Amino acid sequence: MKTIAIIGLGLIGGSMGLDLVQRGYRVIGITRRTITCQQALERRVAHIAGTDLSMVETADLVIICTPISHILNTLEAVTPFLMPHAVVTDVGSVKSAIVSAATELWPGFVGGHPMAGKATAGLEVAETGLFVDCPYVLTPTATTDPQALATVRTLAQDLHSQLYECAPQEHDRAVAWISHLPVMVSSSLIRACEQEADDRVLALARSLASSGFRDTSRVGGGVPELGMLMARYNQTALLQSLALYQQQLLELTELIEAADWSALENWLLQTQQARPAYL
Amino acid sequence: MKTIAIIGLGLIGGSMGLDLVQRGYRVIGITRRTITCQQALERRVAHIAGTDLSMVETADLVIICTPISHILNTLEAVTPFLMPHAVVTDVGSVKSAIVSAATELWPGFVGGHPMAGKATAGLEVAETGLFVDCPYVLTPTATTDPQALATVRTLAQDLHSQLYECAPQEHDRAVAWISHLPVMVSSSLIRACEQEADDRVLALARSLASSGFRDTSRVGGGVPELGMLMARYNQTALLQSLALYQQQLLELTELIEAADWSALENWLLQTQQARPAYL
Repeated sequence: MKTIAIIGLGLIGGSMGLDLVQRGYRVIGITRRTITCQQALERRVAHIAGTDLSMVETADLVIICTPISHILNTLEAVTPFLMPHAVVTDVGSVKSAIVSAATELWPGFVGGHPMAGKATAGLEVAETGLFVDCPYVLTPTATTDPQALATVRTLAQDLHSQLYECAPQEHDRAVAWISHLPVMVSSSLIRACEQEADDRVLALARSLASSGFRDTSRVGGGVPELGMLMARYNQTALLQSLALYQQQLLELTELIEAADWSALENWLLQTQQARPAYL
Repeated sequence: MKTIAIIGLGLIGGSMGLDLVQRGYRVIGITRRTITCQQALERRVAHIAGTDLSMVETADLVIICTPISHILNTLEAVTPFLMPHAVVTDVGSVKSAIVSAATELWPGFVGGHPMAGKATAGLEVAETGLFVDCPYVLTPTATTDPQALATVRTLAQDLHSQLYECAPQEHDRAVAWISHLPVMVSSSLIRACEQEADDRVLALARSLASSGFRDTSRVGGGVPELGMLMARYNQTALLQSLALYQQQLLELTELIEAADWSALENWLLQTQQARPAYL
């Protein structure tokens, strides 16, 4: 593998470009806006950059770094230009909705999800080493070409990520728990507080909120489009997680209603003991 | 006011002692364990320290810094020793359950809640300036003695806190929203993840969890006894908050079930816009 095309030069695509140029690959950057091409060249994110999808024609590996809603139509648009041996991967945060359709469009497709991010998006905040020690999940299926899988494994290793491999559905259930459910839990907290009918109490709550509220509400105050896309593309797994969450919340509420304080303390002890496994 | 007795020398009582000694008050430290008395004297948290509640007899102001479950019986135990003009306050994180009963025990009682804290407890982590710029909520009622209120206002000012005053019920509803509800929301998140029946998915979720999960689950992994006490002493307000929270979560789930993505994005936009008022 010598030439890598990156489609979409935001935080993820841009940061990949920075690392891959440094590792000696020939990197082609493709983006929708001409001004981003100039920035990409200035920041050495790619050796050449342009807006024309046919630029993938010399690429051994194509990494689609567009928003999740554009992955499949981007893949469809580039397939006429791909070399027969070309491998294509994506960086979308859900996989079931992408992988089977993408594999039908291009047999050399391997689903991927490098789990790095920052609070802000865009090429401006792209940085070297963004993926170091971060999980990079690959989601091969029974029909995935082993050579294509090996190529994307090498990419994850080149970025010094921690490689995980699982089925698309397993990935989606796992990220529903630890990424998508927290957004819904957290945004509902903000929304619930805003339901306070007494203006004095609402003003006081806002004034008294500190680190506990700040942390619990953080992901609920994130970019609305991203939260919506999580739900849209991971609807099934998220609804399953939401149902189990509501059940737990109901059990907890019943303990408080019943004033069963020892059971409540025991419940909280279990969550305290369970949490470190996620850190 | 010249002499202040602090009962309970943990993080809050100890940190108050450090500041009040430096401000020139005569500080008496009272604690249950002799070893804590020695530590308090070594750290200059108090001028004299002991385990005998009768030591309050020279105090113009008594600050009860025990766990919330011991505030009322501590007050009851010290009243025989108090000077007639002595003012008593507490630092409990709920107020309705304390203030009316405490005022019956001692007319010079003023409920207070200095909202500073750390992840760990105890005199060992007490520090100077802990309360600087933190909210200090006083909860006077119609029967509160104005002179006693003035004394505790001075205390909050001496600690360079931000002074708030409201009814005990208003305080409890506000902290239910921003402190107690987040604990329940957050612990239910951890508990829900642990319900995942597929061991591979559970292991993957634990491995992939990062800052979003860490922040949203933080207060749910806190000290179980503290979470239990919040619910026990603020049961009514917390149950009201939980009911409104469950309603919001249900609405959100319905939007996802209905695949109403524009309404979901709008919902998330509203929470994004609402959050800064709490920071």
